[in-house]
Amino acid sequence: METPEQDAAHMARAIELAGRGHGTTSPNPVVGCVVLDAAGQVAGEGFHAYAGGPHAEIVALAQAGERARGGTAYVTLEPCDHTGRTGPCSRALLDAGIARVVIAVADPNPEAAGGAARLRAHGVPVTNGVLAGAAERGNEEWLTYARLGRSHVTWKFAATLDGRSAAEDGTSQWITSPEARADVHRMRAAADAIVAGIGTVLADDPSLTARAPGAGRDEGDGPARDGRTPLRVVIDTEGRTPQHARVLDDRAPTLVAVADDARTGLKADLLRLPRHEDGLDLRALLRELAAREVVGAFLEGGPTLAGSFVGQGLADRVLAYVAPALLGSGSAALGAAGVGTIGEIHRLTFDDFSLIGPDLRLIARPVHPLGREQ
Amino acid sequence: METPEQDAAHMARAIELAGRGHGTTSPNPVVGCVVLDAAGQVAGEGFHAYAGGPHAEIVALAQAGERARGGTAYVTLEPCDHTGRTGPCSRALLDAGIARVVIAVADPNPEAAGGAARLRAHGVPVTNGVLAGAAERGNEEWLTYARLGRSHVTWKFAATLDGRSAAEDGTSQWITSPEARADVHRMRAAADAIVAGIGTVLADDPSLTARAPGAGRDEGDGPARDGRTPLRVVIDTEGRTPQHARVLDDRAPTLVAVADDARTGLKADLLRLPRHEDGLDLRALLRELAAREVVGAFLEGGPTLAGSFVGQGLADRVLAYVAPALLGSGSAALGAAGVGTIGEIHRLTFDDFSLIGPDLRLIARPVHPLGREQ
Repeated sequence: METPEQDAAHMARAIELAGRGHGTTSPNPVVGCVVLDAAGQVAGEGFHAYAGGPHAEIVALAQAGERARGGTAYVTLEPCDHTGRTGPCSRALLDAGIARVVIAVADPNPEAAGGAARLRAHGVPVTNGVLAGAAERGNEEWLTYARLGRSHVTWKFAATLDGRSAAEDGTSQWITSPEARADVHRMRAAADAIVAGIGTVLADDPSLTARAPGAGRDEGDGPARDGRTPLRVVIDTEGRTPQHARVLDDRAPTLVAVADDARTGLKADLLRLPRHEDGLDLRALLRELAAREVVGAFLEGGPTLAGSFVGQGLADRVLAYVAPALLGSGSAALGAAGVGTIGEIHRLTFDDFSLIGPDLRLIARPVHPLGREQ
Repeated sequence: METPEQDAAHMARAIELAGRGHGTTSPNPVVGCVVLDAAGQVAGEGFHAYAGGPHAEIVALAQAGERARGGTAYVTLEPCDHTGRTGPCSRALLDAGIARVVIAVADPNPEAAGGAARLRAHGVPVTNGVLAGAAERGNEEWLTYARLGRSHVTWKFAATLDGRSAAEDGTSQWITSPEARADVHRMRAAADAIVAGIGTVLADDPSLTARAPGAGRDEGDGPARDGRTPLRVVIDTEGRTPQHARVLDDRAPTLVAVADDARTGLKADLLRLPRHEDGLDLRALLRELAAREVVGAFLEGGPTLAGSFVGQGLADRVLAYVAPALLGSGSAALGAAGVGTIGEIHRLTFDDFSLIGPDLRLIARPVHPLGREQ
């Protein structure tokens, strides 16, 4: 049997493989798998590449072939035990003669769970929780979706070092660099939905599509992924989106979230939601989006809307582009977020930071555990 | 003769040596020196360690002794040609029989300059400008002081990721971590003056002393460097500093800058300055501080005062401690800085960033060349 160090090394590789599916597996999780033969040599590797495609275990087992017999399989997520678009992976592992299975994270999905139990019932020892933290971070969007039944939210903002997103007169082009803006489009394209508030729609008339990096404002727009365009979502409590707004054009589907009692003649795909304080019930919104298979939502534009998400504990990941510049006045990146005194501050941790062009790109997450709200 | 690659390598070492003098050479520059023998082997190294102590060249030549004859000297700053507290280094290099001198940065000080000319006049070839950029950054405070005749200003601030330094009710303890606060004290202790505005004095009653890292609020305070305590400077246009304020205690000297026509009965060391817009002429302040041998000033506290320094192009270095936290409301780290529209934004470059505890520590500088204002 492998040592704990060997387990960690093989699982790290499986997590790396899983990452290759980022942005194309929704509404499925990303999963990676490494299969060793009975002698402990790597015999197969695989990852889940797209929804409807083969699961990671199936790919790795196919590569290993007969060498899988008596071997060990490392999987970043508990193998499924149900017959969905593909057969149960627990059965495939048993059929291949795998003698031991190592799992990073248990499957929170009641439909798919039970894989570990079935394996154990057939006499195959299962080790759970190896590199669970890293595997969870790699699957954070899907785990939030699966555990909480709502979409995961990435709040993106671009600001100066003093936290401002526009000058005093409202001008804001271009605070961050072309490199940072291209990165935003890459991140957008990997999301299932792009969310903005009515304030941003009225002020900037954005198209909210995922443009190819480097493309101009009026060309190169359109679907960024094979056959899949992120859903555009406008948070518009009273239904004030102009009928001619870019966000209502035909380049991508659009959902306009309005209050259930809003009196609006807007012709669009309306989602009626309960009111909450000055706006809409955002948790209800994210549940509705999850029901539409939106795993990861990308929140842009609007300090007011961002403040509501942050204030309600619904910003699961913060993606900040900080320009090396100072404004001293003008619109703040984040509006009121329910903090009256310092003890109520929203604490995060920095998970990643790097330079992108001249700008700093930061990823931060709330300190409470991923997918488990306070 | 050495190759350009060898020149760069030896100068890099000289710059590294120079850095060891940081924080203790004021009002002198930091300087490093490497002496090679005639065969190109390192024969001596030195740096300027404290004002009044021997210059870097003298230390390196003493170490090299007779081996210096026919050799090459690398110096980060042009050797002095005057007899100050020590004799002229140009003469010492000639006396030691050095056959070639390589310099990173010319001496902007008219009193001390002329070393390169004297060496050349005696037939010693001089190469100038090797690793000039790196050497300038290592000496940025002194070069600003020497070139512009005013103190160099480091503006320090601590804020949340959304650029706020206090919550809505004014509470602000502790946004950044103990590690970040200890680093602030280290940076403070290396400065010649600590500058704050009257708003901060009235709101927080800070002592503005450089405390030893880890020491509590009421103990361990006092001089942080051998025999030298940073001067405390309060920008107090109307002279409203309370007579019982901590900043006027006897733990460090304090200068209170007031308007030349301010009607104040304040008993303190007053510096009367012309008015400028809503406050004081900060450039005049920095010239007065330079006359008092303040090479590096550390600006803390007060978004309003920071906005004035940034707005007048007088923040030479920005030292930011960014906490992984969000407030959404409350006091911004930087107040009005003369920017009305995006084209007037103050552009910087990030020169350094690292995690310090859970916080991000950033160093940024204006894009215009060091010590040469726009």
